[in-house]
Amino acid sequence: MKVAVIMGSDSDWPVMEPAVKMLKGFGIETEVVVASAHRTPDKVHEFAAGARQRGVKVIIAAAGAAAALPGVIASFTTLPVIGIPIDGTSLKGVDALYSIVQMPSGIPVACMAINGAKNAAIFAAQILAVGNTELENKLAVHRQKMAEEVAEKAARVLAKQ
Amino acid sequence: MKVAVIMGSDSDWPVMEPAVKMLKGFGIETEVVVASAHRTPDKVHEFAAGARQRGVKVIIAAAGAAAALPGVIASFTTLPVIGIPIDGTSLKGVDALYSIVQMPSGIPVACMAINGAKNAAIFAAQILAVGNTELENKLAVHRQKMAEEVAEKAARVLAKQ
Amino acid sequence: MKVAVIMGSDSDWPVMEPAVKMLKGFGIETEVVVASAHRTPDKVHEFAAGARQRGVKVIIAAAGAAAALPGVIASFTTLPVIGIPIDGTSLKGVDALYSIVQMPSGIPVACMAINGAKNAAIFAAQILAVGNTELENKLAVHRQKMAEEVAEKAARVLAKQ
Amino acid sequence: MKVAVIMGSDSDWPVMEPAVKMLKGFGIETEVVVASAHRTPDKVHEFAAGARQRGVKVIIAAAGAAAALPGVIASFTTLPVIGIPIDGTSLKGVDALYSIVQMPSGIPVACMAINGAKNAAIFAAQILAVGNTELENKLAVHRQKMAEEVAEKAARVLAKQ
Amino acid sequence: MKVAVIMGSDSDWPVMEPAVKMLKGFGIETEVVVASAHRTPDKVHEFAAGARQRGVKVIIAAAGAAAALPGVIASFTTLPVIGIPIDGTSLKGVDALYSIVQMPSGIPVACMAINGAKNAAIFAAQILAVGNTELENKLAVHRQKMAEEVAEKAARVLAKQ
Amino acid sequence: MKVAVIMGSDSDWPVMEPAVKMLKGFGIETEVVVASAHRTPDKVHEFAAGARQRGVKVIIAAAGAAAALPGVIASFTTLPVIGIPIDGTSLKGVDALYSIVQMPSGIPVACMAINGAKNAAIFAAQILAVGNTELENKLAVHRQKMAEEVAEKAARVLAKQ
Amino acid sequence: MKVAVIMGSDSDWPVMEPAVKMLKGFGIETEVVVASAHRTPDKVHEFAAGARQRGVKVIIAAAGAAAALPGVIASFTTLPVIGIPIDGTSLKGVDALYSIVQMPSGIPVACMAINGAKNAAIFAAQILAVGNTELENKLAVHRQKMAEEVAEKAARVLAKQ
Amino acid sequence: MKVAVIMGSDSDWPVMEPAVKMLKGFGIETEVVVASAHRTPDKVHEFAAGARQRGVKVIIAAAGAAAALPGVIASFTTLPVIGIPIDGTSLKGVDALYSIVQMPSGIPVACMAINGAKNAAIFAAQILAVGNTELENKLAVHRQKMAEEVAEKAARVLAKQ
Repeated sequence: MKVAVIMGSDSDWPVMEPAVKMLKGFGIETEVVVASAHRTPDKVHEFAAGARQRGVKVIIAAAGAAAALPGVIASFTTLPVIGIPIDGTSLKGVDALYSIVQMPSGIPVACMAINGAKNAAIFAAQILAVGNTELENKLAVHRQKMAEEVAEKAARVLAKQ
Repeated sequence: MKVAVIMGSDSDWPVMEPAVKMLKGFGIETEVVVASAHRTPDKVHEFAAGARQRGVKVIIAAAGAAAALPGVIASFTTLPVIGIPIDGTSLKGVDALYSIVQMPSGIPVACMAINGAKNAAIFAAQILAVGNTELENKLAVHRQKMAEEVAEKAARVLAKQ
Repeated sequence: MKVAVIMGSDSDWPVMEPAVKMLKGFGIETEVVVASAHRTPDKVHEFAAGARQRGVKVIIAAAGAAAALPGVIASFTTLPVIGIPIDGTSLKGVDALYSIVQMPSGIPVACMAINGAKNAAIFAAQILAVGNTELENKLAVHRQKMAEEVAEKAARVLAKQ
Repeated sequence: MKVAVIMGSDSDWPVMEPAVKMLKGFGIETEVVVASAHRTPDKVHEFAAGARQRGVKVIIAAAGAAAALPGVIASFTTLPVIGIPIDGTSLKGVDALYSIVQMPSGIPVACMAINGAKNAAIFAAQILAVGNTELENKLAVHRQKMAEEVAEKAARVLAKQ
Repeated sequence: MKVAVIMGSDSDWPVMEPAVKMLKGFGIETEVVVASAHRTPDKVHEFAAGARQRGVKVIIAAAGAAAALPGVIASFTTLPVIGIPIDGTSLKGVDALYSIVQMPSGIPVACMAINGAKNAAIFAAQILAVGNTELENKLAVHRQKMAEEVAEKAARVLAKQ
Repeated sequence: MKVAVIMGSDSDWPVMEPAVKMLKGFGIETEVVVASAHRTPDKVHEFAAGARQRGVKVIIAAAGAAAALPGVIASFTTLPVIGIPIDGTSLKGVDALYSIVQMPSGIPVACMAINGAKNAAIFAAQILAVGNTELENKLAVHRQKMAEEVAEKAARVLAKQ
Repeated sequence: MKVAVIMGSDSDWPVMEPAVKMLKGFGIETEVVVASAHRTPDKVHEFAAGARQRGVKVIIAAAGAAAALPGVIASFTTLPVIGIPIDGTSLKGVDALYSIVQMPSGIPVACMAINGAKNAAIFAAQILAVGNTELENKLAVHRQKMAEEVAEKAARVLAKQ
Repeated sequence: MKVAVIMGSDSDWPVMEPAVKMLKGFGIETEVVVASAHRTPDKVHEFAAGARQRGVKVIIAAAGAAAALPGVIASFTTLPVIGIPIDGTSLKGVDALYSIVQMPSGIPVACMAINGAKNAAIFAAQILAVGNTELENKLAVHRQKMAEEVAEKAARVLAKQ
């Protein structure tokens, strides 16, 4: 039960770190890679084509600008690929969003919100939970906690009022 | 191995029909529902909250305009939800895209391209294939066929030249 | 004569506080709630479905990103719902704006400007003033004061010149 | 119980006619006016300033392009003003949307979706229903019917399948 | 030979001050006014309708958000109106730009760049120079100086290299 | 009293013809030119640099796509230049709008709405009317007629109702 | 002196055919390929990696949607790559434009206008003309002809007037 | 083997300096110019028309706002022109991007990313390398180094983990 997390640039790491932590929190093994679809295409090819054999079940790929990384990975594997557009240029992530979400028919990428790293981790866990009751339960607990946190924060706002 | 396909309006059917056909082509059982997050919220709630118990493993949800449907469904279940923004207003699907892809942290929706119904079906199959070698093989075959179709079409273009 | 003010996240409070203060300034009772359409859907359902019985006459709902909150509330009640898109992501509130303003036919939400909390409060008061001459007069006085403030500020600019 | 419906150009009439019909269906008296904030400003002033005295309780104002009409009307009255951006230029209604929704602090306009005439009518009815149980019931019935229509259309889609 | 400079809010003054200074530099008399199309409509009406009689030849109007001011002024006078969209909201001036530039057929406003106050002053001077050789010469001198400044700055860049 | 009308392509003529007709209707002499800033730059230079000597008082320049024409003309003359962005590409005129309206400080172009040819003609007349009472009166009459037309069209809409 | 023209889908051919014709008109040998970065990545890799050895000097790559093709090719070769965004989705080519023009630092793609196939051909010729006086002359002749065509079309417009 | 680098304003220098350094690193002679298409059009004309005779082989032109500079230069020469949109206004470089990339048919400009100065330098080198094996080798070495840098940075991220 391994999820690979790949990002196009080391500068994406602060956005992506919470995703890796969250995956670990769910007890999911992770493989973290920095490789660029444009600057190190062979490494990306190798990463993607061999992922299934390394035991990877889901791939999370983050990239900014002309964010080709998630789509290029998806072109080399039929594993589910989750894409995260990074806000890293003057276009504020809209460039990366369109580059990731508008995949042509035949090669899907599951696009998350701009900088939406945590949701990529949760979605990866949801995929793995399809055949894993333990993980399904962990997700239910996580969601319950989240609801409680919202309630606590709400209480603090109301107290201030 | 069942995938639910829900759409916000019957007018979304022409866009969504190919997704249902593709799922069937993969041998995946489907459950097709028309229900609106805004006009029939109770039906959506019932649909989403009971999906797991009905044996649904993945949900595909399509909606246009202020496309709340995929997110609302995701709020009631931890099953993977795939969202399809429909081009159905003056904003050409950008409204639906932003309403689906920009989910807040905690509740992911996997967003496909505007009107990207086929990719939703393939992605659902990819999720189910994580624990299903037969389906994994079907996906590999499908991809191979697609490559061959591109080659055939290419040949026709070159012949015209 | 009660107005409910609900926001999707405690981080929306600094934007929303002026609305609550303005409602109180008009002598309108307020009910402040933090609840997320996606993270705490049951709480939102309960809030919306019971609002009329709690004496709420108008609901103000603020949310950022894929801002489903105002529309989801509107789906559970026929009370007037005023939506405020919050600027809280890389898309600078355009995501929330489109998610709120592009409601499908049948379930209206009255959309205010991005971060337009004060106008939501004034609009709520305008709704209540339809059957309330005292409040109508307060609104006239408020508008008069506003005009005087513009004039005073204008005078200061001209003095600097 | 009268609602005024004003539009900036006679070319807006096909979009606005359903709103007028819907208001009549709710048993609400209507006053229909064509006047342009830019081409006939005095008529708009007269219309807005005298609306309350003519018994108007809510104003619906539709305009395209640099859609100043709803805001200009709101500047002359404290009656609730509902604005409808019309898709009538190369910018597909985004110009009208921004011109209506981004009202400055102090003078609210309740913005509907682009071409969202029906929702304006329903929202006007919701405002009037705040102090009118009969209308409140009509709105509940209307919503119920709408849900039934969605269900019927859904049945037809499923039958085709 | 008088140019009126009007702005919707005192907060626009820092953007507009250079325009007033530039007009004075050309020897053009100025009339500076702060008035809001939405908050002080009567003052705007009075300003616009009486401008010609006060000897105003050109009007410069600046506004942000749903920037109705230039268009509203243009609706009350046939004097040339120059509009300046102010960057003052989350939409970064695009709201004001669309509200000013997309004037309907019949009532023109000459739109400048977002925050383009200096160009409004120069354009006003160009209008007045149509019948004024002295001002025409001043504009030629100003343009020559500008070219020289570009050359000087260029020299400094090249020196650094 | 001559106005030059220049357009970047003969395909702009159907959009621009009403402007030429309107100018003639005001009794203004016109000079119509087709020349491209990019394809025939020398012709544009010659046109712009010699305009004043040919008796031109105002220049109207229309262009689509990377619409450099109005700005390039403005760079060669201090005559007032009115720019019209043409909707002629996949970007629906937004490319031309930004290319025309966002002129840098020092060289103004008065931008009209996308395809706003008539308003360019009226604005040119307003500039010329600054020193011409006869034309001022014609503009007042034109505006009066326009208001009457709106009223007539309004009457027809109301009659249909 | 060979230019390769590659497009992501056979449906791009009607847009791309004029580019191929124009290259031939300049006496430039062409190699036409249909291959998809996402659906046939190996073919694209092979095409790009071997281009230099096949004598290709410049590559023109056209793609719509999440248009990864030009960037992926550029990642495998240091030959100049010219990208053409195709208008083929609800986003009208803006998705392809951002996917092509926003290439990350290190791997350039020369982006043309949306559907700008002819300019890609001319730009390829300009690159080859850097070391080829004959081609340089052909380009000068082509430009001269273009200017003459503009003049002829202008004459026809003026004749109609 | 000379590349000219021209920018519309001295304020563009911090963005452009890395391009000049990179060109020098490749052993390419540079000519640096500051000149504005709008403020110093004659200087731009002179620069562009004489470039070929000064031995310039490729021109890099950077500009913000209504970024006419690259297109105007391209109108005066058939040398390859590379354009760089500068992020320098409220529109965050989208204005410059559209003004540069949407060149009309006949006069191409090779558009780089917003602020993409380094890629302009690399692309210029790629053009020159078409007939220059030494430069071709330098580009291959540069690309190799870049890949190594990505790998080193990746190692540092992984070490942190």
